[in-house]
Amino acid sequence: MTAKSVQFWFEFASTYSYLSIMRIEERAAEAGFEIDWKPFPLGPIFKAQGWDNSPFNIYKAKGDYMWRDMERLCAHRNLPFVTPDPFPQNSLSAARLALAAQDEPWFVDYCKGVYAAQFGAGKNIADPDTLSEIVLRAGADPAHWLSRMGEDDVKQALKTRSAEAMELGIFGAPSFIVDGELYWGDDRLDQALGAGG
Amino acid sequence: MTAKSVQFWFEFASTYSYLSIMRIEERAAEAGFEIDWKPFPLGPIFKAQGWDNSPFNIYKAKGDYMWRDMERLCAHRNLPFVTPDPFPQNSLSAARLALAAQDEPWFVDYCKGVYAAQFGAGKNIADPDTLSEIVLRAGADPAHWLSRMGEDDVKQALKTRSAEAMELGIFGAPSFIVDGELYWGDDRLDQALGAGG
Repeated sequence: MTAKSVQFWFEFASTYSYLSIMRIEERAAEAGFEIDWKPFPLGPIFKAQGWDNSPFNIYKAKGDYMWRDMERLCAHRNLPFVTPDPFPQNSLSAARLALAAQDEPWFVDYCKGVYAAQFGAGKNIADPDTLSEIVLRAGADPAHWLSRMGEDDVKQALKTRSAEAMELGIFGAPSFIVDGELYWGDDRLDQALGAGG
Repeated sequence: MTAKSVQFWFEFASTYSYLSIMRIEERAAEAGFEIDWKPFPLGPIFKAQGWDNSPFNIYKAKGDYMWRDMERLCAHRNLPFVTPDPFPQNSLSAARLALAAQDEPWFVDYCKGVYAAQFGAGKNIADPDTLSEIVLRAGADPAHWLSRMGEDDVKQALKTRSAEAMELGIFGAPSFIVDGELYWGDDRLDQALGAGG
């Protein structure tokens, strides 16, 4: 039997993507799904909607709520949670490095490492030293991969990924796609994996 | 033992408020909560955020997704669902009538009737005939209650309710408050009623 597949679209600066990346492997395995990992940049999509900042910063009540919601959910899931400073972080380098390393065996460890550093340890993921340490811990060569992220094919791959997200109607992160159906938000993970609704 | 209490903040034109009002009584009873019903107008809050329309109309991808999400959720919950035309509906009269009737024994039936007419039967809740029919079905006198909604004390009560919502940091509907904690969205109903998170 071929495993079912879930596309997992995540943005490295996104708080709710942190919630999903820390549980999607276990949930997908239980439900018999393979994960198609799709790191993507949400900035261009927000810009197209007329936002030059996170809506959580633009709309204060919504932002205040989000931080409290994250605190409660992380406490319930036993996930460490630190408010990133600044927020949102500039995730361009982290995303380019992810696109460069998409086919590497340490790719998932790298992605989870970016979230753990940012939301668990309060590090700035725009800082090359932070990325170096994450790559090293994932078991790869930081010097090589940090230089890869500046190359044209990698930059282009991220632009293509961004265009693909917009084409699919994605407007926020995390998003999940199963059988052409779009599901938005960590709250929809179980539903995307077939648990009704 | 005193029952615990959940404040339920709902806007009559809100799609996701429809989902919550159709299940909150059962869920609250199971969890041992009394419901403190708080119909309120979201328009003034959206206006304060710079929106003169529903964000689902302003942001097309988000709107397209919301309609599909509602379709799926209503199908799963065996709720009829018709896209209101126009959307959002002008809910001012429906909300004023609710405030006028807040202490009446048929108040909850009226509120659910507004949602059923709008999202189940495709009626326009700005139409006095629609409201008359809902009041009549709830068991009260339409002529009396439709005239009440134009009176100053009722208009003022709705303005006070709106200010109270803003004061509490409410920015969307439905919202729930338990022990001073704000929960936003039908997705948070179970959590508000104590199911973890």
